[in-house]
Amino acid sequence: MADGVTRQTHDDAIARIAEMLGARLVTSAADRAHHGQNETDFPETLPDAVAYPETTEEVSRILAICNAAGCPVTPFGAGSALEGQHLAQAGGISLDLSRMNQVLAVNPEDLNVVIQPGLRRVALNEELRATGLFFPVDPGADASLGGMAATRASGTTAVRYGTMRDNILALEAVMADGTVIRSGSRARKSSTGYDLTHLLIGSEGTLGVITELTLKLQGIPEAVTAATCRFDTVEDAVNCVILTVQSGLPMARIELVDEVMVQGFNLYSDAGLPEKPHLFLEFTGTPASVAEQTALFEEIAGEFSVDGWSSATKTEDRNALWSMRHNAHYACQALAGPGRRIRSTDVCVPISRLAEAVTTAQRLARDGGLTATIVGHVGDGNFHCGVVVDPTDPASVAQVAEFSHTIAHLALDLGGTVSGEHGIGLGKLDLMSREHGPALAYMRSIKAAFDPNGILNPGKLLPPASAKETLS
Amino acid sequence: MADGVTRQTHDDAIARIAEMLGARLVTSAADRAHHGQNETDFPETLPDAVAYPETTEEVSRILAICNAAGCPVTPFGAGSALEGQHLAQAGGISLDLSRMNQVLAVNPEDLNVVIQPGLRRVALNEELRATGLFFPVDPGADASLGGMAATRASGTTAVRYGTMRDNILALEAVMADGTVIRSGSRARKSSTGYDLTHLLIGSEGTLGVITELTLKLQGIPEAVTAATCRFDTVEDAVNCVILTVQSGLPMARIELVDEVMVQGFNLYSDAGLPEKPHLFLEFTGTPASVAEQTALFEEIAGEFSVDGWSSATKTEDRNALWSMRHNAHYACQALAGPGRRIRSTDVCVPISRLAEAVTTAQRLARDGGLTATIVGHVGDGNFHCGVVVDPTDPASVAQVAEFSHTIAHLALDLGGTVSGEHGIGLGKLDLMSREHGPALAYMRSIKAAFDPNGILNPGKLLPPASAKETLS
Repeated sequence: MADGVTRQTHDDAIARIAEMLGARLVTSAADRAHHGQNETDFPETLPDAVAYPETTEEVSRILAICNAAGCPVTPFGAGSALEGQHLAQAGGISLDLSRMNQVLAVNPEDLNVVIQPGLRRVALNEELRATGLFFPVDPGADASLGGMAATRASGTTAVRYGTMRDNILALEAVMADGTVIRSGSRARKSSTGYDLTHLLIGSEGTLGVITELTLKLQGIPEAVTAATCRFDTVEDAVNCVILTVQSGLPMARIELVDEVMVQGFNLYSDAGLPEKPHLFLEFTGTPASVAEQTALFEEIAGEFSVDGWSSATKTEDRNALWSMRHNAHYACQALAGPGRRIRSTDVCVPISRLAEAVTTAQRLARDGGLTATIVGHVGDGNFHCGVVVDPTDPASVAQVAEFSHTIAHLALDLGGTVSGEHGIGLGKLDLMSREHGPALAYMRSIKAAFDPNGILNPGKLLPPASAKETLS
Repeated sequence: MADGVTRQTHDDAIARIAEMLGARLVTSAADRAHHGQNETDFPETLPDAVAYPETTEEVSRILAICNAAGCPVTPFGAGSALEGQHLAQAGGISLDLSRMNQVLAVNPEDLNVVIQPGLRRVALNEELRATGLFFPVDPGADASLGGMAATRASGTTAVRYGTMRDNILALEAVMADGTVIRSGSRARKSSTGYDLTHLLIGSEGTLGVITELTLKLQGIPEAVTAATCRFDTVEDAVNCVILTVQSGLPMARIELVDEVMVQGFNLYSDAGLPEKPHLFLEFTGTPASVAEQTALFEEIAGEFSVDGWSSATKTEDRNALWSMRHNAHYACQALAGPGRRIRSTDVCVPISRLAEAVTTAQRLARDGGLTATIVGHVGDGNFHCGVVVDPTDPASVAQVAEFSHTIAHLALDLGGTVSGEHGIGLGKLDLMSREHGPALAYMRSIKAAFDPNGILNPGKLLPPASAKETLS
């Protein structure tokens, strides 16, 4: 896309970065290709070069060079984004933060930890094990924590502990021109000025590059019980969830798995589950509290067509259950067969409208002859349809895009949002205007103020401006 | 401050608003004086006029008129701010939102409520009583919920339920030029674009006027027990809090009251408490869980010099306890005597540094011969010194300002923040640069983008720009 002059300017910027980083600035085809892949069906998108900074200072110098040259910079964590956030859509630098993966300080007495953004969540929890503390946000993928912050990720435990939005006390970020800022502190709350922490969380690398995070930690619960139960219908399962949430039961996890997804688990994980809608559950607390919660849940479930209840108190059984759940994307891929990809919807609705949303999605998939699994963080009203798409068949691509679009508009009609946790990236740009209306112009004005040259992850999160929007 | 031309332009704007609002645009001395008062020792500050809009549409038209005229607009809720946020420092319009005080929708099945910003928290909870739900954020004062959102308020229950930051799902705001935006939805989470909801929360009316809030609700707990216990030293009380928080005990409230504050309660509320440091506690949950929590707390407290334990399970006894706690400001005023005012510090530190912060504050007050009470939301690391000041004596004013300044810098040295919940307003402008460093320039750029004419609550939150700050 770059013209000759721009091309030369970018090449000069890359050459200057190569002088600084040496072998940590890579232009090999293999490395560029690795950074151009994604878990969804977006086309391969190659950056011009991949930079592997090791310090905030290096990130700052890289951004200063790129800002002066107008060279795009796309942050890259683990590459597990589902809306293509890490793809260098406009070329330029893929800023791979995987070498900035250190735990900088564990503060057990304050229940927090200071980390670099390239650290992944599984490694963090391994490092924390001896402290009796853990970081609860669990999106399934072994994502980088910087990427999780940048996409405002959540997952199976958000019903209890909240999303990344709720679990970051402070951060350091490098802004477009190389300025390093800090936002927040190690104190648990603050009322001092505009909340730049929350502005950067979920900004998908378009406002700044997160180079450090201070994360809240939780005590590892004394007792944990996992369980599965199955229902005759998805409505019964969802209505059981709604009553559970309304009862104030402090569920650690409560996940919906529909009958198609169960087929996928049986295929991919040899699960041997009856092909009916299931809830996967986790209860945590003191032993007495877990016993009380379990009894209360059984009582609630008894009001619906619950059938089959199996609990797992042993660590390995619980791990097997959640590992199976976390592999939903790959189980869906197994159902799809070779050559097919999975497009995942991600709407989130008020819980009172959840049964309607889920059953409508199932009906639309069935009517369209689509293969679509449903898994959901249903305690939050968030669910995913994993729809099988044939990326080589334009009709299949168009049909799945249309299906996703319909589900997104349904969610908005029900008072919800088009993305609970995957973000906008490349995949939902066309929905931003409907979801945000006049607020979109204010988002654009922040982008223009923070990144006037538009170098930070261009083409993501904000759709191209239309004539209808104005900010006077 | 306004010159002749500006004066005339403002008068014209006020005349146009009077045409729209009729008797709801007031310029009487009494009404202006009422809106120029504050709970601290800031001087009386009169607006030119007070507007009482009843709809978002009216707020929008008022802002459009004032934006065109460059006439300042300062939102006013209940006037209970402690840093003068509601004072019309530059004259212009005091935008009194007290007539926009309706509950617009209660959604018990989704555990949320939609309200107008002038509604106060006590009235909201009275309206909710029949639903079995309540709104937990409790700053003590019967503040307006719009004001609580705008100052990112919290209070005694934040240790369990979080601050206003954590309890607002969505909002509507009128921006400087009259544009009405919505941010967030009724879904419990979202990853769709920049988080304007959190940007407006805590912006103290400088970025937009909040005209509607969707608030998360909680189920009223089945069982509630309040208790007080006393310690030989503040260190023992604080260390007991630290261990309690680290143990993961889900305290509903845990408040520190030092021996000077107890004197105030004995004077103002005839409390008859021994003049020693106290913790005021609340445990909530199922009856079994409350019993378990209480036993665990007693075990923890037993490791310190705890002495005296009195619990209150009856509603009237609990209400008496928390009403006494909520009157801390007035109890402090009672200790101060007539003609004196109270300046409240508001620092928040990592809990591991809390004992050091509290005892240093006590020592500094004692060494300076100041009368200063300490109360604290110590589960969050947040505490207030209520310092007696003689507003007619410049030496007293200067000494108390110096004391507050020292405590604020101490909090920053300890990794904390200069305000846990009262905000910046007029009182902490000089601390913004030290707390935020280069991030302050990014806050200014948001202000410039959202309110280019600087009409929204001028003089608050952002200090006058210094030559040292740059945003290139």
